[in-house]
Amino acid sequence: MSTQQAFQTEALTTMARACRKAARGPARATTAQKNRMLRDLADRLEAETEAILAANQRDLDAAPGYGLSAAMVDRLRLDAKRIKSIADAVRQVATLPDPVGAISDLRPQANGIQVGKMRIPLGVICMIYESRPNVTIDAAVLALKAGNGIIQRGGKEAFHSNHALAAQIGHALEAHGFEAAAVSLVPTTDRAAMNHLLTLEEEIDLVIPRGGEGLIRFVSRTSRIPVIKHYKGVCHLYVDADADLDQAVALLINGKTQRPGVCNALESLLVHADIADAFLPRALEALAEKGVEVRGCPRTQAFSDQVLAATDDDYHAEYLDLIIAVKVVDSYDAALDHIETYGSNHSEVICSQNRRTTERFLRDVDASAVLVNASSRFNDGGQLGLGCEIGISTTKLHAYGPMGLVSLTTEKFVVLGDGHTRD
Amino acid sequence: MSTQQAFQTEALTTMARACRKAARGPARATTAQKNRMLRDLADRLEAETEAILAANQRDLDAAPGYGLSAAMVDRLRLDAKRIKSIADAVRQVATLPDPVGAISDLRPQANGIQVGKMRIPLGVICMIYESRPNVTIDAAVLALKAGNGIIQRGGKEAFHSNHALAAQIGHALEAHGFEAAAVSLVPTTDRAAMNHLLTLEEEIDLVIPRGGEGLIRFVSRTSRIPVIKHYKGVCHLYVDADADLDQAVALLINGKTQRPGVCNALESLLVHADIADAFLPRALEALAEKGVEVRGCPRTQAFSDQVLAATDDDYHAEYLDLIIAVKVVDSYDAALDHIETYGSNHSEVICSQNRRTTERFLRDVDASAVLVNASSRFNDGGQLGLGCEIGISTTKLHAYGPMGLVSLTTEKFVVLGDGHTRD
Repeated sequence: MSTQQAFQTEALTTMARACRKAARGPARATTAQKNRMLRDLADRLEAETEAILAANQRDLDAAPGYGLSAAMVDRLRLDAKRIKSIADAVRQVATLPDPVGAISDLRPQANGIQVGKMRIPLGVICMIYESRPNVTIDAAVLALKAGNGIIQRGGKEAFHSNHALAAQIGHALEAHGFEAAAVSLVPTTDRAAMNHLLTLEEEIDLVIPRGGEGLIRFVSRTSRIPVIKHYKGVCHLYVDADADLDQAVALLINGKTQRPGVCNALESLLVHADIADAFLPRALEALAEKGVEVRGCPRTQAFSDQVLAATDDDYHAEYLDLIIAVKVVDSYDAALDHIETYGSNHSEVICSQNRRTTERFLRDVDASAVLVNASSRFNDGGQLGLGCEIGISTTKLHAYGPMGLVSLTTEKFVVLGDGHTRD
Repeated sequence: MSTQQAFQTEALTTMARACRKAARGPARATTAQKNRMLRDLADRLEAETEAILAANQRDLDAAPGYGLSAAMVDRLRLDAKRIKSIADAVRQVATLPDPVGAISDLRPQANGIQVGKMRIPLGVICMIYESRPNVTIDAAVLALKAGNGIIQRGGKEAFHSNHALAAQIGHALEAHGFEAAAVSLVPTTDRAAMNHLLTLEEEIDLVIPRGGEGLIRFVSRTSRIPVIKHYKGVCHLYVDADADLDQAVALLINGKTQRPGVCNALESLLVHADIADAFLPRALEALAEKGVEVRGCPRTQAFSDQVLAATDDDYHAEYLDLIIAVKVVDSYDAALDHIETYGSNHSEVICSQNRRTTERFLRDVDASAVLVNASSRFNDGGQLGLGCEIGISTTKLHAYGPMGLVSLTTEKFVVLGDGHTRD
């Protein structure tokens, strides 16, 4: 390790320790204190729009040098309206219920003690993200409301924007008696610094990478700290023999076309053989009207010469585009097998009016959200009633599915006695 | 990698895949099916006592070759009474409530869908343990009751005992329509095999190491799969200025001496300066009566020339023996700072009749169990009402504290609609 690297890793360790210490502030604050600070932050973001936009312009000027695509530049770009909407999102978080401190299930045990569980902050969260500067505010605000500190490592493309936004967080924290270090932006975007952060298991409790699959796989392979993983979304709609066909068409079109570029969009359609004659002609017509390319099994192809032949890769694909893979299956069990083989544990939908079949599907399918007669697009923190979302977990430890404030907390046991000792 | 190693890693991967597939059995079984299988297993263990003891004898005969201490040989040894008690523990698990399938908080959202969470098995658990053969039964039974498959890697010292016990699990599973592979004992105890297991993130959802700190640190550093960590227990009793002194003495003696060799035993005593004159003479006398060696700060030493001087290492120590570190602190905050610096997030006790102080302690102290006027020895799954315990987590992700059946499950979102689509 060079002297400069050694210097940098020591600075990062110091930063993480300071964040851990500063995190006691939000951990012990009352809900009212946290909410006042958040509302103040929202006001500051609006008042400092000009300074934030000037910083953002520096990033936009540098964007061609990073070879950013037009879509990436759009994600990077802030304007007064976007800042207003970021500030409004902060005010919205201030209205959400505070999970911290709630004691549940407090009850006496046979041995005489009372035992319950108290919800507490996780401690320090490390957020690793790419080019969207709004994440700097969104993630910090959720972490703070749940009583945590946060270490943020954004992408180099948004370096100046992130610093301008983080400065406002620091001002708001200090104005309300918190240490600014409770939200610490990593001052460098180099890879070695990120790798070092991922070893700080004494200081950091949870790592949340937000970005492409490559980033997430890298972080989860490298980290000694638990990582919330969100891989791809290969979401299926299974149209059962007992489906309401109007509903099935509506769920198909909504899931595939309402916003095809997101992880809870449909990528595959499974159709029970008994209903294929009645359903597939309507489904294929509706998909064609929306300009969706269909890649199907031979039985699907029999319904239209527009249907291309699906390969095994198609059933694995997360298209994020107006393309869908279609397969006719002989039974509920065949549909389930297909989902187990090709699904990604993200969102799985059944369309059926048969209660026994839908109950089985709810129980049997291993996905972060299992939906009956509802669009896959509902698997989203806001739609599911969490009020917010810091990410979606497709692995089962700690959190599974969209993560709201409660997922940024844990529970400890509390025991109340009156001098009780153990025999 | 040698040909033999390549063969072995492939065999382990195949085993893990078979376990994952077989785990669908317990995942989808009814509570009654699982309980019948467990009661049958208990009967088989008793009926096959002779065969199990013969296998155990082979391990006992080999023990000197492994250089096992007398205490380790005792942990390894089975007899008819111990087998009866293992079987009774299995019957006890059959009586526990089944966490799987419960749907909580099902409620309508503004968008019209109903959203709830369903409790589901984690999938496949990998248990890595040392010389106690009873873990082979205990862990398998808890995993199965919670609907999971389990891969078990026991220590070489208990190789034959573990195989004899696992054989009975296999028979019970098959007799009740489950695949024996749902409980898979790793057929080798070499290190390379364990390392390979810890890379199988597609097949295994959670790793639980049970043993010394060295094993746990090795597993958590090596594994790509989430690991439940249980490091040491440096548990404090803080005797506040408003303590009931009779209670304080009772909590001290019970916490330190009732079973000094376990992780929830007390290792340190903190005494508020205002009450030191009244409390410490009584405390030191009671500790002396029980033969406990005291290592204290200078203010503690002033009360008795039997008190040795405590070093910084003493405040960090997990003695697991009749030794205690004692310190007089000037305030509640000083006690809290000491616990934050030296504690291990395991079990922390306050003795106080002051409601404001105890409420603050409950909220401020970061430990898997925080106890008010109750012995640290209550931090145990059985005592806390979990009915069982597969381990204690001292890290906050997924589980914090003793882990019962619920900690071997997770929750997925369930969404019920009637053709609902997203705007």
